[in-house]
Amino acid sequence: MHNHPIAKLLHQAGTAINHEDFDALLNIYTDDAVVVIKPGFNATGKAQIRQAFEAIAGYFNHTLKISQSGMHILETGDVALVMAKATVTADIIENLERHASYVFKKNPHGEWRCAVDNSYGFDVLQRAF
Amino acid sequence: MHNHPIAKLLHQAGTAINHEDFDALLNIYTDDAVVVIKPGFNATGKAQIRQAFEAIAGYFNHTLKISQSGMHILETGDVALVMAKATVTADIIENLERHASYVFKKNPHGEWRCAVDNSYGFDVLQRAF
Repeated sequence: MHNHPIAKLLHQAGTAINHEDFDALLNIYTDDAVVVIKPGFNATGKAQIRQAFEAIAGYFNHTLKISQSGMHILETGDVALVMAKATVTADIIENLERHASYVFKKNPHGEWRCAVDNSYGFDVLQRAF
Repeated sequence: MHNHPIAKLLHQAGTAINHEDFDALLNIYTDDAVVVIKPGFNATGKAQIRQAFEAIAGYFNHTLKISQSGMHILETGDVALVMAKATVTADIIENLERHASYVFKKNPHGEWRCAVDNSYGFDVLQRAF
C-alpha cells in the first residue's frame, strides 16, 4: 500500500506543507477540491486552498510539521477512500495525532488527485466550533 | 443536510438492512462498489456485497437493526465524502455506535451511488483481525 500512487502523493503533500511549498501542495488537488479547514468551514478550489494553507502556516509561526503514520486505501474504479493517521507538531501545540479521511479521483490521464480533504475525521460531526 | 439525496439513500439503506430487503439495499451501490466487511476483508461488486449482507443477517440471527444518528456530507462535483454515525443493535451484541465513512459518486443520470462503504471508520488502520 505504501507504493500506491496515492501514498506517494500524501507523502509529497506532507513534505510540501513542511517546506511551505504551496505550488507543490496544490498539485495534489483537483481544481474543485474541498478542504475542511475546521469543522463547518471549508476551502473550495485552489485559490481558497492556497489562502487557507498560507494562513495556517502563519498561525503556527511557520513551524508546522506533518508526518504520516498510517494509511489505508479503499479503491474502486476512478475513486478511492483514504483513511490516514498523521502526527502534527508546531511551536504552539502539543504533538497531535490526526485522523484524516480523503477522497481521491483518477483523472483522464490516469493521475490521482485529492477531491475531498477532511483532516478532522469524525470531528466534523460535532461542529463544536 | 438531511434533505440531501445522499442522506435519503443512507436512510433507505438502513431501512433495507432492517427489513433484509437486499434488492433495495444493493440499489444504493455502484456496480463496482467496495464494502468493508471487516478490516482487511472487503466485498467488491453487487454479487459479493449481497452474499456478505446475507451472511451478516444470518450471523446476527436476523435481529440486526441500524439507525443513523449523525451525518456530514462533503461534496464537490460528482463525488462526496460522507462521515456518519450509526447505532447498531442485535441480539448477540451490546448497542454499538459505529463511525462510518462513505464515498458516493454521481452517475450520468445525476443519481448518487455508494462506491466505497467503510463502516469501520479508522479501525481499518488497525487490521487487528
